[in-house]
Amino acid sequence: MTKSAPLRNRVTELLGVDYPIVQAPMGWIARSQLASAVSNAGALGIIETSSGELEAVRLEIAKMRELTDKPFGVNVAQMFVRDPSIVDFVVEQGVRFVTTSAGDPRQYTSTLKAAGLTVFHVVPTLSAALKAVEAGVDGLVVEGGEGGGFKNPRDVSTMVLLPLVRSKVNVPIIAAGGVCDGVSMAAAFALGAEGVQMGTRMVSALESPVHENWKNAIVSGAETDTVFLNRLSRPGLRALRTERTTRLEREENVSLAEMSRIQDLYFGGDLESSIALTGQVMGRIEGIKTVADIVEETIVVYRETIAALSASI
Amino acid sequence: MTKSAPLRNRVTELLGVDYPIVQAPMGWIARSQLASAVSNAGALGIIETSSGELEAVRLEIAKMRELTDKPFGVNVAQMFVRDPSIVDFVVEQGVRFVTTSAGDPRQYTSTLKAAGLTVFHVVPTLSAALKAVEAGVDGLVVEGGEGGGFKNPRDVSTMVLLPLVRSKVNVPIIAAGGVCDGVSMAAAFALGAEGVQMGTRMVSALESPVHENWKNAIVSGAETDTVFLNRLSRPGLRALRTERTTRLEREENVSLAEMSRIQDLYFGGDLESSIALTGQVMGRIEGIKTVADIVEETIVVYRETIAALSASI
Repeated sequence: MTKSAPLRNRVTELLGVDYPIVQAPMGWIARSQLASAVSNAGALGIIETSSGELEAVRLEIAKMRELTDKPFGVNVAQMFVRDPSIVDFVVEQGVRFVTTSAGDPRQYTSTLKAAGLTVFHVVPTLSAALKAVEAGVDGLVVEGGEGGGFKNPRDVSTMVLLPLVRSKVNVPIIAAGGVCDGVSMAAAFALGAEGVQMGTRMVSALESPVHENWKNAIVSGAETDTVFLNRLSRPGLRALRTERTTRLEREENVSLAEMSRIQDLYFGGDLESSIALTGQVMGRIEGIKTVADIVEETIVVYRETIAALSASI
Repeated sequence: MTKSAPLRNRVTELLGVDYPIVQAPMGWIARSQLASAVSNAGALGIIETSSGELEAVRLEIAKMRELTDKPFGVNVAQMFVRDPSIVDFVVEQGVRFVTTSAGDPRQYTSTLKAAGLTVFHVVPTLSAALKAVEAGVDGLVVEGGEGGGFKNPRDVSTMVLLPLVRSKVNVPIIAAGGVCDGVSMAAAFALGAEGVQMGTRMVSALESPVHENWKNAIVSGAETDTVFLNRLSRPGLRALRTERTTRLEREENVSLAEMSRIQDLYFGGDLESSIALTGQVMGRIEGIKTVADIVEETIVVYRETIAALSASI
């Protein structure tokens, strides 16, 4: 496939990539096999830390150096990585781009910025966005409640949250939640984003290391096949609907201990053994594609969608 | 204010309006005072039937004839209006456009179509959309879970649901849920809509008959200030967060009897007396505007947003 011409905006400039598409930092999954495919496709691969396995992460970052000469980033999931040496670690590895999430943006931003890194903080509400900008971040990942993963229990959809944040801040925004292709990327850009983050779409990619049972559940499932756990406690979770999560949906307080066997699910394929963090876009994903095809098709359809809109006004 | 040039697409053709913006059919509220202002602004006002007060509705439709010479529509809320004479009634009144909702699309579509009306059915999922198209509707109102009102308990956001339905059907789509301005209209059109429906935005309009306490709650509230009731039963409801609804949020089965004093809330201003159906876009609404200003600003910003996107690809 011929590669599309690069897009140019504040996000591609800050990230040093051709296309403003970022792969989400799924715990255990966002490692070098997937992230290097994303970076090599001209988008931005991200290495996770939410597994808490810092030694494994260190090795994965080293592997990234072998697998790609393109930029990549690291996510610092503050709730899971309480060791402040995480910042020194990321800086030592020579990483230039970090997303911080699930914690107070004041905790690491100034240190990371002082070390010369570009920092985007992940936010689920306007008030969190304002706090992050106040803390000095370079940009925001604005995450709508339709996305998979750890969520604010008072979830707000991308259609509402993104333009709201856009209207109140000047920093560049990467949209997360509900984005899986060029059509949703065009919508996100209409709402004020200059980049998009894809989680479930990348989990389902050919290069994703997860078990085919989960990929097949994403491909065959409907848009209504996620559940939201811990609506009235924390952390909220959006996940694949299974027998287990259908039962957990009725519990007032789902413990993270319910996720202890996550690797049996993610890599062993036992979908009832844990909680498979998955977004509503699963209903739009109809096949397993290579990361290169996902990125290229997204950019082509993004441009086609805007050209068609432009012809209609 | 100068009026924008009309938009032309399948929705404006079918509805006979200048701008493909439809006012949602809020029970008791979507009556002639508000609906005539919408129709006179070049969009489509809709008269509700979900109040079940058919005699009042008959009078309101008669009033519409005095207040506007522009097209308007009627919503047939099947769950609330079980009397089949509703169809004869709508036909007799000379209404040309009907949305049907909260029921089986096979119930009234053929009769309404045989009488020469244009019929759009409101759907919250892909499977409902396919069923409605099979029943022969002219188009769909695709309603994301972020919107206020009666909802499918398994809510799906506009960002996911709209492009999913668009990819599977050919009929024109009006997007509902999360739409309140030209930016969100541009996003909806990127996702495949040819029209948008606004509920909460119209509830807050100057010409809306509701009490200023509710309008002020919409204007001052945050994007997180709605609750979703009956997640595990039916019907789901998205409503303004109040002390009462915060309590009801924890109940497994909220009876519609909780809404019996709705008029004390809507028109008396006692926000704790009932359940104020409100969408997440309340967080984006910062002032009370005339319907004419809402419609005109939406069209202007819609065109500006697409022009700016077009310049960036």
